[in-house]
Amino acid sequence: MNYVGKNEKWGIGIDMGGTKIEAAIVGDQGKLRDQLRIPTNSQDGAERIIERTLRAVKELMGRNSDVEVAAAGIGIAGQIDNEGEYVIHAPNLKWSRVNLRQQLVNVLAMPVFICNDVRAAAWGEWSFGAGRGKKDVACIFVGTGVGGAFICDGKMLHGFNNSAGEIGHMVVKVNGELCTCGNSGCLEAIAGGWAIRKKAQQLALQDQSAAQTMIDLAGGIASINAKTVFLAANQGDKAAFKIVGDVVAALIAGVISVINVFGPDRVILGGGIIEGMPTLIQRIETGVKKHALQAAISNVQILQAELHGNAGTMGAAMFALNNVQGHNKER
Amino acid sequence: MNYVGKNEKWGIGIDMGGTKIEAAIVGDQGKLRDQLRIPTNSQDGAERIIERTLRAVKELMGRNSDVEVAAAGIGIAGQIDNEGEYVIHAPNLKWSRVNLRQQLVNVLAMPVFICNDVRAAAWGEWSFGAGRGKKDVACIFVGTGVGGAFICDGKMLHGFNNSAGEIGHMVVKVNGELCTCGNSGCLEAIAGGWAIRKKAQQLALQDQSAAQTMIDLAGGIASINAKTVFLAANQGDKAAFKIVGDVVAALIAGVISVINVFGPDRVILGGGIIEGMPTLIQRIETGVKKHALQAAISNVQILQAELHGNAGTMGAAMFALNNVQGHNKER
Repeated sequence: MNYVGKNEKWGIGIDMGGTKIEAAIVGDQGKLRDQLRIPTNSQDGAERIIERTLRAVKELMGRNSDVEVAAAGIGIAGQIDNEGEYVIHAPNLKWSRVNLRQQLVNVLAMPVFICNDVRAAAWGEWSFGAGRGKKDVACIFVGTGVGGAFICDGKMLHGFNNSAGEIGHMVVKVNGELCTCGNSGCLEAIAGGWAIRKKAQQLALQDQSAAQTMIDLAGGIASINAKTVFLAANQGDKAAFKIVGDVVAALIAGVISVINVFGPDRVILGGGIIEGMPTLIQRIETGVKKHALQAAISNVQILQAELHGNAGTMGAAMFALNNVQGHNKER
Repeated sequence: MNYVGKNEKWGIGIDMGGTKIEAAIVGDQGKLRDQLRIPTNSQDGAERIIERTLRAVKELMGRNSDVEVAAAGIGIAGQIDNEGEYVIHAPNLKWSRVNLRQQLVNVLAMPVFICNDVRAAAWGEWSFGAGRGKKDVACIFVGTGVGGAFICDGKMLHGFNNSAGEIGHMVVKVNGELCTCGNSGCLEAIAGGWAIRKKAQQLALQDQSAAQTMIDLAGGIASINAKTVFLAANQGDKAAFKIVGDVVAALIAGVISVINVFGPDRVILGGGIIEGMPTLIQRIETGVKKHALQAAISNVQILQAELHGNAGTMGAAMFALNNVQGHNKER
């Protein structure tokens, strides 16, 4: 991060997730000046969540009143309409067709821009993290689900329906594991946290002795999760090692596909699964460098995301500042 | 195609392949005024091939001397450097590091632009074929190999190494069939003509009785090719039907991945394999519409390529005209 601060423009960045909402004041040179966090309490419904979010933002602005804020950006775990007005659908928040942007404009009295949370995090990594200064960047976040965003020739890729980047639902294994989306063989259905957990628990139910290490570590089959699998694999447990091997193979396939098809110069991997098993990124890189097309992989760097928990707020702020500063309208 | 013709700008389009070289005079409104074809005779080497190509272009210009040509574009089956000067590597032509552009400029005395042949064909479909008027277009050509090109937000995607679009080497089946690129499970290793032929011949060698229809149709195992497989499948042959089923499943997976990740509003499928089995595109469309993400597939059209053999020359010409008319520099 660059702490220049001179003539810095400031934005509010909001990361609105299913469990917590974070807001931050971020400078366009990458300074994270202040931040706060509140629980989402998704059962409260859109109206009250928005109300609490606005209160939090005002508190943040109040305690940083020496700073002039130019715009606010929100990254939200859901699908945003093409005009960036509505949240069409946000399953984790239990929202459907919420006119988010105008409600925030009315109260904050500044330009507000909304986008998908993964795209916001990618804006963060692109602006201030592992992708800074690059024109062709692929960001892949592997957590409970798998999401992505792509910067092509210096522009964020939106796609016709503003839905681009769903790399979790890239098919890497035709007729493979059933995915929550209804398709099978999706990257997420192998490498996503939910899929790792599901596969490990299924294995434990089928053959308790083969999964004993995982069961012991978790304290019961129902408590086995991706973290358990990584711990057990590190202890040499064969079943866990096999699951991790499948995760690595699927991620190698996904990253190779991205490189061969998109031609990025930098691939950024982040999210809980990547951070939870430090050897993962090295194994992915080795496989990708071996098997991607020579013409495509030349001089490509595969790096871990740098901003961790701050990517969402920092990216949402930068996304907003980029829009308000009269650059190309970005979503 | 649009035969307006008034104030039409004219370009030369050249499609340089491993077996034949085609050249055409093409208008920027989509008129194909004249064309000719010569054999490549790749064993002759770059110098003589370029010499013959130039002679053909001059003949074409000579017999259309009433038309003023603004630029020439060449689509070539190989990898082009980032500056659009050199052919880095063209295996079908047996070329390596050939300074193609300058040689043509020297003789033709007009602006010349070179690009990959698949990208040229995509320029054709985007300008005058199934993708005209669209801003987010995915072109997938399934022939002996599988190639693609992507128009994102109104711009052709090049990628950092000018290698973007290699959808044939998108992994759709992790640990699957070995590909010529050294990786396994590539789309091309299942759906490319060479892979269909290989699988059918292997099957025939393993179990002659199971493959009898294909052997009879081809007149011997060594003569079985993709066409044989399609014919046999149409006659109800089980082995051929299974191979075609795998091709369809792989193409569905590839198209779904493209839609979920890129978010095009139009997917164009072309090439010999698509044209060789007319039911293929309907089967692909049905599978894709069923299993792509709802948010991504909404209002997306999946269409067959329209320009067939003319996509390469028409696209190369349009690519050149687009460059010379002072639009964004495109590769």
